[in-house]
Amino acid sequence: MAGYGELKNRRREMYPYILEYRTRWSDNDMYDHMNNSIYNFLYDSVVNTYLIKECGLHPPTSPQYGLVVHSHSDFFGSIAFPAVADLALRVNKLGKSSVTYEVALFQQGIDEVKAIGEFVHVFVDRETGRPATNGMKEDIKEGLQRILVKQSKL
Amino acid sequence: MAGYGELKNRRREMYPYILEYRTRWSDNDMYDHMNNSIYNFLYDSVVNTYLIKECGLHPPTSPQYGLVVHSHSDFFGSIAFPAVADLALRVNKLGKSSVTYEVALFQQGIDEVKAIGEFVHVFVDRETGRPATNGMKEDIKEGLQRILVKQSKL
Amino acid sequence: MAGYGELKNRRREMYPYILEYRTRWSDNDMYDHMNNSIYNFLYDSVVNTYLIKECGLHPPTSPQYGLVVHSHSDFFGSIAFPAVADLALRVNKLGKSSVTYEVALFQQGIDEVKAIGEFVHVFVDRETGRPATNGMKEDIKEGLQRILVKQSKL
Amino acid sequence: MAGYGELKNRRREMYPYILEYRTRWSDNDMYDHMNNSIYNFLYDSVVNTYLIKECGLHPPTSPQYGLVVHSHSDFFGSIAFPAVADLALRVNKLGKSSVTYEVALFQQGIDEVKAIGEFVHVFVDRETGRPATNGMKEDIKEGLQRILVKQSKL
Repeated sequence: MAGYGELKNRRREMYPYILEYRTRWSDNDMYDHMNNSIYNFLYDSVVNTYLIKECGLHPPTSPQYGLVVHSHSDFFGSIAFPAVADLALRVNKLGKSSVTYEVALFQQGIDEVKAIGEFVHVFVDRETGRPATNGMKEDIKEGLQRILVKQSKL
Repeated sequence: MAGYGELKNRRREMYPYILEYRTRWSDNDMYDHMNNSIYNFLYDSVVNTYLIKECGLHPPTSPQYGLVVHSHSDFFGSIAFPAVADLALRVNKLGKSSVTYEVALFQQGIDEVKAIGEFVHVFVDRETGRPATNGMKEDIKEGLQRILVKQSKL
Repeated sequence: MAGYGELKNRRREMYPYILEYRTRWSDNDMYDHMNNSIYNFLYDSVVNTYLIKECGLHPPTSPQYGLVVHSHSDFFGSIAFPAVADLALRVNKLGKSSVTYEVALFQQGIDEVKAIGEFVHVFVDRETGRPATNGMKEDIKEGLQRILVKQSKL
Repeated sequence: MAGYGELKNRRREMYPYILEYRTRWSDNDMYDHMNNSIYNFLYDSVVNTYLIKECGLHPPTSPQYGLVVHSHSDFFGSIAFPAVADLALRVNKLGKSSVTYEVALFQQGIDEVKAIGEFVHVFVDRETGRPATNGMKEDIKEGLQRILVKQSKL
């Protein structure tokens, strides 16, 4: 993943897919911040929306699904209910059966990024729960390819 | 509260305040429906957004806050991630220190209502946790008054 | 449902099935109380645990599942993280394809009840999402029968 | 952090503080697994319980609180409702104003670990939201010291 300084300078235009999510009352913790665990809910939501709408995934019946094997997140600033968030998505790495997403959370009206996470999906067969032998299905791969961002050499 | 048949015919125009909420991946249960408990999160969110933006409530410091003493909800249809919901709010009853909200959940693109809940806030003093002796503060009452809908006699 | 006064006097021994749930950090709202919407998560959890462990329900494959059509809840007192809750379950009404559960939330170490909710499940066929034509399956009905509590006449 | 192979071999006895958490119905996603975002809720919960019960933290009033600046998690296996989880906590690094926790999630009845996360709290002054000038308070530091586990050299 990119270094801390580079991440902190991420802006919306570096991400090809963005969705708006309204925060919820229950997202705030006792310190009047969105609970850090909620960020993962939103990362998950933008990724799964993309998989369903742009990659042909149909969670109730698809023969493959993505299993999270690793995640990490850096937090640069806070956001609080009732603010509206923009969730910005790109793919940083695309393998035969695995993909590394990068998701950034912005607050509407503010340029600086609040938090950035990466997480890794391994596509597994629904029947066995094991990594798909021939890798992820073609339509999933093509969809993810479209938002793959070439990494700068560090 | 209105009867089941009357509730089922509620439409967006019967509510003076509407906010759009994108569903989240984690909202779905194993049957590919938004979990019924999530509806309460969304009811709570539209009510608290209204209290903060239109009634001067500031949760970290306000001398009063609303305590839920009763809630109920009827479910007429289901909604599933990644659909977008419209949460529609009105006040059905406004007392000295208590208020009865009605919140309806619609799915974008569909006229029929999915679920309707009512819940009752009693405004209490932050210090004591007891009902506010002189009733709810003036700016809260005025804000709630603006979305009070006269009930038809049944 | 029972009246407010009667509900307030509910005690653990009036419920045949009790599970312990530890509260979570994210359950608290900004007023240092468990968010009222979380109660529904816990009601749902004790009911579904009972259906799975005592009534043979297997959510990923069972031909029927319970759809919530109505819920209500009364709140008598608050609980806050990191307290431990006892969730107590009984069945108040058992029909051909529907069941009315009553769930009470207690805090460990305290006799008085914090909140009581009722909710209604209609068992539907997984294929159609419509109420099961011959009613709920025999093993579900038998399991629910075992925790049916005869209502006192009011 | 320890390498993947070393993490996978973690067992309960390597953690000085363990709490039991019952999973909830809403924790499961559509694939009949606990949603990966829920792990963070549980990590947060065991850490905050320790801070409150063993380090004198009182979230509604304490002059300092812990702000999460980084988190990561590796997933080795899945768990599903209605299983009961054991959340096991240790401190891996303790600085002047920051602490690195390691939390492991086990399923009751199973020795192998399901997931391990680390996250970093920076203690900030409640007034300013900035890192505490003289570092974390003495009682917090002492409490965290008690569960500090010396790292093996790698």
